[in-house]
Amino acid sequence: MNNQLNNDTIVALATAPGTGAIAVLRLSGKDAISIVEKVFTNKSQERKTLQDKPGNTIHFGLINDDETIIDEVLVSLFKAPHSYTGEDVLEISCHGSQFIQQQLLSLFVRNGARLANPGEFTLRAFLNGKFDLSQAEAVADLIASNSTVSHQVAMSQMRGGFSGKIKILRENLVDFASLIELELDFSEEDVEFADRTELKNLVISIQRIIERLVESFEVGNVIKNGIPVAIVGKPNAGKSTLLNVLINEDKAIVSDIPGTTRDTIENEMSIGGVLFRFIDTAGIRDTSDVIEQIGVNKALQAMQKSAIIIYLFDAHQLSSRDIDVEINKLKEHIGNSQLLIVCNKIDTENLVELQKEFAGFENLIYISAKEHLYIEDLKTKLVAMFDSRTINVTETVVTNVRHVDALRKANSSLYKVMEGLNKNIQSDFLAIDIRYALEALGTITGQVTSDELLGNIFGRFCIGK
Amino acid sequence: MNNQLNNDTIVALATAPGTGAIAVLRLSGKDAISIVEKVFTNKSQERKTLQDKPGNTIHFGLINDDETIIDEVLVSLFKAPHSYTGEDVLEISCHGSQFIQQQLLSLFVRNGARLANPGEFTLRAFLNGKFDLSQAEAVADLIASNSTVSHQVAMSQMRGGFSGKIKILRENLVDFASLIELELDFSEEDVEFADRTELKNLVISIQRIIERLVESFEVGNVIKNGIPVAIVGKPNAGKSTLLNVLINEDKAIVSDIPGTTRDTIENEMSIGGVLFRFIDTAGIRDTSDVIEQIGVNKALQAMQKSAIIIYLFDAHQLSSRDIDVEINKLKEHIGNSQLLIVCNKIDTENLVELQKEFAGFENLIYISAKEHLYIEDLKTKLVAMFDSRTINVTETVVTNVRHVDALRKANSSLYKVMEGLNKNIQSDFLAIDIRYALEALGTITGQVTSDELLGNIFGRFCIGK
Repeated sequence: MNNQLNNDTIVALATAPGTGAIAVLRLSGKDAISIVEKVFTNKSQERKTLQDKPGNTIHFGLINDDETIIDEVLVSLFKAPHSYTGEDVLEISCHGSQFIQQQLLSLFVRNGARLANPGEFTLRAFLNGKFDLSQAEAVADLIASNSTVSHQVAMSQMRGGFSGKIKILRENLVDFASLIELELDFSEEDVEFADRTELKNLVISIQRIIERLVESFEVGNVIKNGIPVAIVGKPNAGKSTLLNVLINEDKAIVSDIPGTTRDTIENEMSIGGVLFRFIDTAGIRDTSDVIEQIGVNKALQAMQKSAIIIYLFDAHQLSSRDIDVEINKLKEHIGNSQLLIVCNKIDTENLVELQKEFAGFENLIYISAKEHLYIEDLKTKLVAMFDSRTINVTETVVTNVRHVDALRKANSSLYKVMEGLNKNIQSDFLAIDIRYALEALGTITGQVTSDELLGNIFGRFCIGK
Repeated sequence: MNNQLNNDTIVALATAPGTGAIAVLRLSGKDAISIVEKVFTNKSQERKTLQDKPGNTIHFGLINDDETIIDEVLVSLFKAPHSYTGEDVLEISCHGSQFIQQQLLSLFVRNGARLANPGEFTLRAFLNGKFDLSQAEAVADLIASNSTVSHQVAMSQMRGGFSGKIKILRENLVDFASLIELELDFSEEDVEFADRTELKNLVISIQRIIERLVESFEVGNVIKNGIPVAIVGKPNAGKSTLLNVLINEDKAIVSDIPGTTRDTIENEMSIGGVLFRFIDTAGIRDTSDVIEQIGVNKALQAMQKSAIIIYLFDAHQLSSRDIDVEINKLKEHIGNSQLLIVCNKIDTENLVELQKEFAGFENLIYISAKEHLYIEDLKTKLVAMFDSRTINVTETVVTNVRHVDALRKANSSLYKVMEGLNKNIQSDFLAIDIRYALEALGTITGQVTSDELLGNIFGRFCIGK
């Protein structure tokens, strides 16, 4: 694999683009130290050496372009192999002017570095054995994480939780393969070393683990992309108001912490550490009958894509009999989704009377979107519905389409192995399918890989990572 | 001044807001180390100490919120007084997820840090004597710098170039004051220790330096805000095309370097390291006569605000006689601005013929905006016009309104001193005005200051600096 390692030295801006108090540039490669030494001086513009300094130390000085001082900087020195990439790495912490960032990048390029491709630092870390492929992918997930749960899953994967599972699966399969291949060596003699029943049990137990991992992807995907929630209801039930209340409250919290304002993705929001993605059905054509409406328009699709459906109604307008009818019609369309009935506009009603009226309904809560009444209860309810439905995040969760594809491939090879065992076919055919399964699992952690695959994975990273 | 130093520990995001490969949080204050130690562990989540480690070193580990790992980070340790602020400073380099940034900020706040105000790190550096006030202000200028020249001026100021000048002025004045005050002590005896002619010469030489600094502000202001250039000319001369060519070419260069795309301010662009600000007169009401036009509309204002005026004309439409008439009319309006005559659309003309026709004009160049012909020549010409007009950037240039105001105040006090010397008034009156002058100069470097002034200055900084 080492032939994929480039001999050149790469440089990139590692911090977010834009103006900040400071910015950090990162260089990695065998010439990283000498390139920086060419332009690094003390305050009197006398050369400063770095090669002779110990790793994990910080050095103050100037970066100069000939006589011109570009900036006063701090250089953090990491020496191979004790660095992120496993190569010599230097991080230059400069003043956060975009002009300075640009000048420094261009200076280092003129002195022999090359602008890094997206993810190239992490690619080098992978190629140098700093972590496996699924861990490298988790780095990108970690950077993209936007809720407690997605953050925890990515962190666990980066720290090798998932890799560990895959490693055990592979070891089991390798044991299995070696037994089978032993038979192969003696195939002339028609010897059967491996106990076929034991082999079957082993395959079944491996398949069970793989299947659980594949199933976890449903949750994993939701963790990464948000739990889809559709808000449906008659016109004027208050759908838009509710949506705004849910989303804006969260935005306000985010922007309370200076400097962390994020590009909010409309309708996404993290509640209690879980990312929810609200599907706006509010703008969809309104007819007087909610079922008629969803029968003909996109609300039906929205509902089918949703894990949770909020049915919102106006306390003034519908009786418990109406709701009963509506809910029954709804239930024909919601499939596996969970239903939450929300009675809105309670601020101008007698809550006790309402509670009497709607006592017969499960999963019904009372709010006033306009007056922000009981919105916290609604949020708590949403998080609880997610929890009850699903997962223990401490378990390994697959969040990556590539991984789930590989797991499915491995599983289908194992089905063939199972079939073969049942039909008592020859070991050499079994061995082929076992190898396929091993290969599929190997692509997850990167034991088996290709330039194209690596290009695909690391091309999606941000530059500087 | 030390009473202004807060005893608390501050924290802020120091890198640009947004998602990057990495982000850096900065803590400063007496509890910075202990706050981080509370949540910092090795990979096995065992506590790691930092207090016992030497300064300027980097430490890998986890930041934990109870049992939950928030991130794998690098902690850069700077020990008082060898840090930016002069206090204990820790920089946490984490994965660049906004979620993680937010979690870390909130964790440190829960553990006893306070979110920093804008510029508060630099304020502490100033209060701890790390640099003077004009140097601190240069830090903000440096971060905002967007051209070679503005960058160099800010760098020189940050490194104490301007402070040095002010210091010499103050020392001269203090010498002067001590001579005068010596007279004061013996005033009963009507002794005159100071040679009045020598004193006058000293005041004159100080005033000369101050005046040169005040004059440099005209240039300094232009360096900071861009040299205003108006493009005027008849309708269809190609004003908009030229503007786009000038601006877009520059944008393309900027975006060649990944990760450094900046929020471009429309119509601003750095050419040859100098910032130009093109004033768009292209959209202004077109009449058939350029002079009539500028007589009635904003183009006149634009021209009067401009340091350089580009008069653009279409090679097809105007003869040298026409141009002569136009230019003469123009000259009534341009005041001190420099004029550059640009003959456009030469791509469909015979250049030799054109050069014959317009040989009589100074400062005339030939281009085709549409075909991008000789645009580089135009740019070079613009930079040369700036140079010839103005400055040697290695000289001290005042770029700050506050400084120029203080210099003017000092100067007017010195005029009173001069008046007094001429009228042979008593030393004690002279001493008062000298003290005023000293005070005015002292506000520049911060020897004389107030909470309100500091609030004004540092409140304009970005957070984290």
